[in-house]
Amino acid sequence: MNTQQPAAYEQLRQHFQKISHFEHFAALGDWDQATMMPAGGSDSRAAAMAELAGHIHQLKTAPNLTDWLSEAEQQLSALTLPQQANLREMKQQWRHASCVPSSLIQAKTAAAYQCEHQWRQQRPANDWQGFKANLQPLLQLVKEEAQARADAEGVAPYDALLAQFEPGMTAARLEQTLGSLRDWIPTFIQQIHERQLPAVASNDAQRYPIARQQDLGKEVMHFLGFDFQQGRLDISAHPFCGGVPGDVRLTTRYDEQSFLGALLGIIHETGHARYELGLPFAWQGQPAGLARSMGIHESQSLFFEMQLAGSQAFVDKIYPLLKRHLSCHQSAAELHQQMTQVQPGLIRVDADEVTYPCHILLRFEAEQSLIDGSLAVSDLPEFWDQRMQHYLGLSTKDNYRDGCMQDIHWAVGEFGYFPSYTLGAMYAAQFRFAIEKQLGPLDTLIQNDKLAKVFDWLQQHIWSQGSLLDTDTLVRQATGEPLNPQYLRRHLQQRYLR
Amino acid sequence: MNTQQPAAYEQLRQHFQKISHFEHFAALGDWDQATMMPAGGSDSRAAAMAELAGHIHQLKTAPNLTDWLSEAEQQLSALTLPQQANLREMKQQWRHASCVPSSLIQAKTAAAYQCEHQWRQQRPANDWQGFKANLQPLLQLVKEEAQARADAEGVAPYDALLAQFEPGMTAARLEQTLGSLRDWIPTFIQQIHERQLPAVASNDAQRYPIARQQDLGKEVMHFLGFDFQQGRLDISAHPFCGGVPGDVRLTTRYDEQSFLGALLGIIHETGHARYELGLPFAWQGQPAGLARSMGIHESQSLFFEMQLAGSQAFVDKIYPLLKRHLSCHQSAAELHQQMTQVQPGLIRVDADEVTYPCHILLRFEAEQSLIDGSLAVSDLPEFWDQRMQHYLGLSTKDNYRDGCMQDIHWAVGEFGYFPSYTLGAMYAAQFRFAIEKQLGPLDTLIQNDKLAKVFDWLQQHIWSQGSLLDTDTLVRQATGEPLNPQYLRRHLQQRYLR
Repeated sequence: MNTQQPAAYEQLRQHFQKISHFEHFAALGDWDQATMMPAGGSDSRAAAMAELAGHIHQLKTAPNLTDWLSEAEQQLSALTLPQQANLREMKQQWRHASCVPSSLIQAKTAAAYQCEHQWRQQRPANDWQGFKANLQPLLQLVKEEAQARADAEGVAPYDALLAQFEPGMTAARLEQTLGSLRDWIPTFIQQIHERQLPAVASNDAQRYPIARQQDLGKEVMHFLGFDFQQGRLDISAHPFCGGVPGDVRLTTRYDEQSFLGALLGIIHETGHARYELGLPFAWQGQPAGLARSMGIHESQSLFFEMQLAGSQAFVDKIYPLLKRHLSCHQSAAELHQQMTQVQPGLIRVDADEVTYPCHILLRFEAEQSLIDGSLAVSDLPEFWDQRMQHYLGLSTKDNYRDGCMQDIHWAVGEFGYFPSYTLGAMYAAQFRFAIEKQLGPLDTLIQNDKLAKVFDWLQQHIWSQGSLLDTDTLVRQATGEPLNPQYLRRHLQQRYLR
Repeated sequence: MNTQQPAAYEQLRQHFQKISHFEHFAALGDWDQATMMPAGGSDSRAAAMAELAGHIHQLKTAPNLTDWLSEAEQQLSALTLPQQANLREMKQQWRHASCVPSSLIQAKTAAAYQCEHQWRQQRPANDWQGFKANLQPLLQLVKEEAQARADAEGVAPYDALLAQFEPGMTAARLEQTLGSLRDWIPTFIQQIHERQLPAVASNDAQRYPIARQQDLGKEVMHFLGFDFQQGRLDISAHPFCGGVPGDVRLTTRYDEQSFLGALLGIIHETGHARYELGLPFAWQGQPAGLARSMGIHESQSLFFEMQLAGSQAFVDKIYPLLKRHLSCHQSAAELHQQMTQVQPGLIRVDADEVTYPCHILLRFEAEQSLIDGSLAVSDLPEFWDQRMQHYLGLSTKDNYRDGCMQDIHWAVGEFGYFPSYTLGAMYAAQFRFAIEKQLGPLDTLIQNDKLAKVFDWLQQHIWSQGSLLDTDTLVRQATGEPLNPQYLRRHLQQRYLR
């Protein structure tokens, strides 16, 4: 190892450290907006956030970077392996920021702003015509963006969009992995339906005070190893995990008539939060110190929510906490049954883990076709209805609000994100079986209060790796093989057809 | 009026708008740090705030500004009067930022950081020797800063420090105004003591739950016209009013054994908040749209706390709210007696409105002598003890913690700020008599639920003026005369010797 870093690398390191300081305020502004900001603050916040985003973009495309990056690459052997990884990530951030012309970014931002803004009214009003009129020009700009990214990366347009969230992932690989669930899941749902007990009737009169749910949530977070010296739990309309290293802030929303949604939401976000808090400290503020990808991020939240909390052993473990905070009269077994009920529905965010991949497959297919032009926006509702019938036997005819208008992603111009959700579920299952190989059954670990061992495994193999490895290497080093969808199938079979 | 603005002015306008967007995040970071941030966030917040402060300083001293400012000044007649005022304020911000060399700013920031950091332990430990060792080099740097500012402004060093908080104010004018209280107050305290009823005994067993105090505080804020769509009330160790236009955030701290401190704190901060929310909307993000000075700011908080809340009429008005939220068994008259009890004490922040100016006079005298070199840091405790004996008949011998180590101001290198507090009290009293001349007695307005008229007067004469006028003009237009300390004397005489 060379003790003298090349000057160009050091310049880059300092430059990206500076960027991270400004990103600190973007994260704070986002969190505050969702949790604390009164309505009167929105205009000045929007203007300030736009200024900040422009400044960060300027820093990421600063003219100096081109020289520093090529100079540092010429002196690659003078860098340690982690430094080389950091350089690779810097270059990727730079390329992502600089390969799309500013004028296009601005046009897309404006179109997305209008589309999202109106979507908030159009969706409840089931106003497809109105939404379509905004989505069409927005999609056109996204296609231009995809082409610009594709040219820079030397890949196909949809793959270039995927790469923003899941570097290294391609539509072809998604077809092999995600696509392998396509024929299997509808049959599997059939099998479950033949054996599944009827849903537990809920008690409509029951009320669960929010303050009590909050206390319960905090205790469960503590049980999951969350350190409140390094984060917070708050309320927002849409649950998320934000903040910065050392200060990770998660949110949930509460329903006084049912505690399960908020509780599972908290567990899910705690998975994201522990990942963020476990990122390599020495690389804080550097691209190599960031979370690997959206799919890996989602794998951690789904590991917590599905692999851990979805088991009877986990429910048994937290049941006494639940009884202490809430007057819950289901038994632990009834609660688990409720949590693992499989029921096809129209809404992705309400879907159980078995039907969820169908929602993603549908969107993955639609996105590709929208981007390559084989599907027109005006044909989207019919496409949606047809695929929903195929996957889940449900119709969305004339029901745009619960069909292709249900998600915010396309309304803000985000195409290529959806596959991350099911990639996350697949990675989570694969990690689970790798952990069991090494530490024994997860249920036994939970029963014997050995969850810390599981977290140690995740810390060592996933969290502390940040972006030091590419996703494939990370997964191979952690599990001995690349992404393999068989593990999700095996997990679902074990849980639902036992 | 010329419809075509000179190009240089427009450049400046845009540049200062940009600065305000970054200052938005400085305000958010400050507020969050005091109210929400977990301990684990402090390192990355400190680094991000330092980066942001550096960026803002860079923007305020950008090389272009020199040309734009002189070009715009040459085209002064092409600007409207408010634009001319804005230009004046821009120039002042630029001069304040650029007249001190960066190396000196950095050295002072580092010395102040160390001094404050250690003061937090040294004060409770009564460690004067330790504090002195940090204050001496810090004062040296402040003197250098004062000299640099003095050279740029063409005024005396202490006046240059004052100008940061109270543009236009000088030690000589303070001597005329503030100084006129010097001989009067000690005698006045004597007179009060001869007539004052003994203090109402407090009920030590009584507890006032924080949630109830918070609800009461919000109701009183509402009564004072605070719009919760444009702000918040939270908890912090040291009460303050922060945030940005349209989103003003105030804080207080609660004591379960006594509600009065938190309640008066909320009323005080509500005065600051209404000033901020009433600033001229058309000038948002521009220097002319900012609050006029610290003294005028303090006049608004003290108007709310002392002129309004300190009256029997106000206590009578909010008494039903108080009874609704808290089990308070004092009568409204006893409460008012408690609020207007005069009792010399060692601590400035705990002082009543009569003895408060003595604390400021002492500090004003000490600051001037420290800056002009006639008082050495090592002689400060003796000076303090001697002046406290003179003003309030109290000794601080060997009690540094409740003497010259009690305030944070000097520990962070802030000299010239203290006079703002009593300037605020003097302005508040002057505004009160101007309002009464026009609208009749304040007590009658409160009794007849006509407080909105008082707020309208403040909105028109103070809040909506921002920094469009200089302080003297503002005060003269509002009250018909320049700052006149007789009004504070008259107010105190009316309230305490009636």
